[in-house]
Amino acid sequence: MLEEQWEEFNKLLRNRGYLWPSYEIYGGVAGLYDFGPAGTLLKNNIIELWRKHFIYRQYGLVVEIETPIVTPQIVLKASGHEDHFTDPVVECLKCGRIYRADHLIEESAGVKVEGLSLREIEAIINDRGVKCPIDGGDLSTPKHALLLFRTEIGPYKGTLGYVRPETAQGMFTSFKHVLAAIGERLPIGIAQIGKVGRNEISPRQGLVRLREFTIMELEFFFDQSKSAEESMEYLTDELLDVKLRILYNDLKVAGVKEPIEAPLRDFLNKGVIVNSWLAYWMAIGQKFVESLGIPREAIYFEEKLPHERAHYSAQTFDQLVYSKRHGWIEVAGYAYRTDYDLRGHMAYSKADLTYFKKYEKPVEGISKKLVPDVVSIKRDFKELAPLVLSEVFKLSSDFLERSLETYGYVEVSGVKLSKEYFVAKEEKALIHGEKIVPHVVEPSFGLERLMYVVLEYSFSKASDGRIVMRFQVELAPYKAAVFPLVTGRKEVHQKIKELAIKIYRTLLNSSIPTYYDEEGSIGKRYVKSDEYGVPYAITVDYQSITDGTITIRFRDTRNQVRVRIDELTATLSKLINANIQ
Amino acid sequence: MLEEQWEEFNKLLRNRGYLWPSYEIYGGVAGLYDFGPAGTLLKNNIIELWRKHFIYRQYGLVVEIETPIVTPQIVLKASGHEDHFTDPVVECLKCGRIYRADHLIEESAGVKVEGLSLREIEAIINDRGVKCPIDGGDLSTPKHALLLFRTEIGPYKGTLGYVRPETAQGMFTSFKHVLAAIGERLPIGIAQIGKVGRNEISPRQGLVRLREFTIMELEFFFDQSKSAEESMEYLTDELLDVKLRILYNDLKVAGVKEPIEAPLRDFLNKGVIVNSWLAYWMAIGQKFVESLGIPREAIYFEEKLPHERAHYSAQTFDQLVYSKRHGWIEVAGYAYRTDYDLRGHMAYSKADLTYFKKYEKPVEGISKKLVPDVVSIKRDFKELAPLVLSEVFKLSSDFLERSLETYGYVEVSGVKLSKEYFVAKEEKALIHGEKIVPHVVEPSFGLERLMYVVLEYSFSKASDGRIVMRFQVELAPYKAAVFPLVTGRKEVHQKIKELAIKIYRTLLNSSIPTYYDEEGSIGKRYVKSDEYGVPYAITVDYQSITDGTITIRFRDTRNQVRVRIDELTATLSKLINANIQ
Repeated sequence: MLEEQWEEFNKLLRNRGYLWPSYEIYGGVAGLYDFGPAGTLLKNNIIELWRKHFIYRQYGLVVEIETPIVTPQIVLKASGHEDHFTDPVVECLKCGRIYRADHLIEESAGVKVEGLSLREIEAIINDRGVKCPIDGGDLSTPKHALLLFRTEIGPYKGTLGYVRPETAQGMFTSFKHVLAAIGERLPIGIAQIGKVGRNEISPRQGLVRLREFTIMELEFFFDQSKSAEESMEYLTDELLDVKLRILYNDLKVAGVKEPIEAPLRDFLNKGVIVNSWLAYWMAIGQKFVESLGIPREAIYFEEKLPHERAHYSAQTFDQLVYSKRHGWIEVAGYAYRTDYDLRGHMAYSKADLTYFKKYEKPVEGISKKLVPDVVSIKRDFKELAPLVLSEVFKLSSDFLERSLETYGYVEVSGVKLSKEYFVAKEEKALIHGEKIVPHVVEPSFGLERLMYVVLEYSFSKASDGRIVMRFQVELAPYKAAVFPLVTGRKEVHQKIKELAIKIYRTLLNSSIPTYYDEEGSIGKRYVKSDEYGVPYAITVDYQSITDGTITIRFRDTRNQVRVRIDELTATLSKLINANIQ
Repeated sequence: MLEEQWEEFNKLLRNRGYLWPSYEIYGGVAGLYDFGPAGTLLKNNIIELWRKHFIYRQYGLVVEIETPIVTPQIVLKASGHEDHFTDPVVECLKCGRIYRADHLIEESAGVKVEGLSLREIEAIINDRGVKCPIDGGDLSTPKHALLLFRTEIGPYKGTLGYVRPETAQGMFTSFKHVLAAIGERLPIGIAQIGKVGRNEISPRQGLVRLREFTIMELEFFFDQSKSAEESMEYLTDELLDVKLRILYNDLKVAGVKEPIEAPLRDFLNKGVIVNSWLAYWMAIGQKFVESLGIPREAIYFEEKLPHERAHYSAQTFDQLVYSKRHGWIEVAGYAYRTDYDLRGHMAYSKADLTYFKKYEKPVEGISKKLVPDVVSIKRDFKELAPLVLSEVFKLSSDFLERSLETYGYVEVSGVKLSKEYFVAKEEKALIHGEKIVPHVVEPSFGLERLMYVVLEYSFSKASDGRIVMRFQVELAPYKAAVFPLVTGRKEVHQKIKELAIKIYRTLLNSSIPTYYDEEGSIGKRYVKSDEYGVPYAITVDYQSITDGTITIRFRDTRNQVRVRIDELTATLSKLINANIQ
């Protein structure tokens, strides 16, 4: 697109109330946007479409929950965010400006530094003589800046909390509650749609990099040992035939830049996607993004190399959409989080977050129970022993095992007990099942980025130069607009207007999002309704008050048809459901 | 209700996945709750019902927007929150515990302290010998604790921001953008539904006092001089006939404890409600709360005395609902915020937030323009004068007037110019209109409190002791449940199940929220569906596979009817729309 078209696009977004930078009267805050009336409707429509693909049409496989944005420190300690959710930064020693070290080096030395240590980054800065781009000042030693918004919860100093950087942790910390509420069963998806905050160093690129945005996220919990078998039931032929474009690591390592297009089944058979549930959700995600009106050739998945992945992931694919403005942008991530998060929270909270996997029938076996070795504890801990023993006896055998496995010790009353202080007691028993820590696959979508690509792909110019937002009907902020076409005497004029308003109200009462417009000429009203991407513009004219019909004008074809007023609601409902533009 | 019934109620909320305290595996955080699958559905249904009353059925009078939660300091400085949004606290000098001074004094000395100064509170503590209730320690001097969650935006130290305590400021800071997007017109309501944070000192009372919650808020902007006239168009007889129960200030001052019930028109005529738009939204709010299933006698409005009102309000009514558990609780506030907020933001941002009120036709008049008095500025500011003059000439006459009116001076380049430094230049002109600062009326609802009272009022026991959640159909998390009734041979069994699943999927595909349940006996499934408040439980049995009919069982009457499967979706849609339970 030409630069002047971008200007037109930006002007449209602002003037038609899709979005604008927040707090502009105060000079704005980078990375924060407001959504106006049309933008809010569009955003909510994208959410509903996501729910349709990821919740409603999953028929009980997925439930939605809502957990807080404010998160106590320990949760993000256990999740690894407090240690890993950082960007490397340097400060100019002359002017005090702070930069993302990786961006700065990339821009001024042309070197990719993703995955490098602070020491390595520092070496590059020194070797290449990277300076402050504003005043040429020397740069400080690089350090990690935490990307979490930090706050204090309650009136006491030091009770740290954060604005959550993802909704996922809410699904892990409440996992057992959800499991109990829905009747213990696996697999189960727990979805959440909500606000998150990431305190970016210097966000640019409009909606693409925000400090506050909405995530639509699904944590899908399953029994890893039955992963292939159970997912087969859900991986229908229709899904296995879904065509994906994937740039996977073998290709990347070999220097290939273009993704390969193939049906999902090929990628599964070749072992490109390591987990079949991950494959399942990638197929659903592909269908969802296409349903937004993005063509398949403008979508691909890129596998992340080990050093590019988040700290919790065993395999990650980014889903990218091509933006004419910003190049390829990541609109979703599909991460195989394994049991990393549940294990982390079990370790930090000492709560049991396992799932009891019942056997079809009990088996005879040896029940093995780990118990403290009283003799050696008494011998080595002397006067502390009674306290240590009373505390350690409160812990379950499962917990002891997990703790020894994870840390190599069990901590009670400030004392660390290594495995020498425990003995395994064995006895014959009927075993009814076992406790497992479910594995997790996570598809996660950035709503504002989706919104951005929807806006960009919808933006089009008709042959006469007029802007038309060609939204899928389901996404259009307003499905209809009602225009009275006033001509003739005042009484007639009044009658037409009254009828138009009556029709307008009827449509709103039938849950069809509609606006009413009597300003300016009919031509100007069409210009406006096209800029809102209204698929069906309804004109009420003199004929309407005489024969009870109105005109529907179709957005994309500009064709007009006359329809009886008493059939209008039904007609529009049918057109909307059939996505006819 | 009896104590044991409360226990049952709480157990139900948790076990059926309505809600539970957040982060319980870490011991919980006071004032934070998770909403489970049923709770999230209920919450979203309340939001949709609110939108119906406050947005959709306002036919273009109200639009919805979305603005960020993270708010830069200056916005909450301009709004007065940084100075006024506090609670008085005292610290025990022995154990360091921090208390809300007003609560502590009320509990231990039985004195109401709302509206008292810190000095007065200190005097009461000393006079009454109020001590720490835990260890009897002396208390510190009371001070104001800010109830805002504080954070830093970006990497620079000291760039303060807050989690917003209300959504309202987003509507004020973006007011001009919205006005431009919808075509400049007044009156206009700007609504927002979103999360807010209030860092309460020590929240208790479950959902009633939260540190993070969802607000459904409407800022209604209007021309104060045309308030009565314009609202008359909207205050239909139907609304004027709405019966409200109000405890207004004259009654309160006279010691009356009970509200007076009367039609809205009486309260307007008596001048109880000072602004007719405020009256309009109170009527809408009354209808909305009743539509949640709360009986009229359990709702009343209480006018706030001047010292009880928020800093921005000229008249405020709280809307209260009676909770059997917590007594009367405030579910909404209706504040007449006047032009306080827009004026505050104009003063702090120097942006023009006025509305240009066009006259029907231009009038001849004198155009008065305020201009700097060059002579006196040069005389008094000497070498600073050129800088001062160049700055002050950049400001509009309107801004100069507003600033002089609000502060008594205009500040430029660190210099304060009082009105002596300006002269009014008058000339004959055609005046097309005038700039006005709109006034604002705000109805504001706490979603979780509404949810709480809905849950409490829905909770009921059938004569056989069974729990039934008697939700309004529109609010019920699930409208239907599908139960296969398996009897007979395995093949028959399988056929029934398949048919049940097919029906279940059809209902979900028709956007009817439904769950499927084949666990346990049919009796147990009804117990569960009643606890979810499912209005229509559908049983698929042997007869279903032979004659194509199923049974609908109604939640409240337990009546059962047989319906043809091919008419089920249509039948349910009709029942839902008619709110038949």
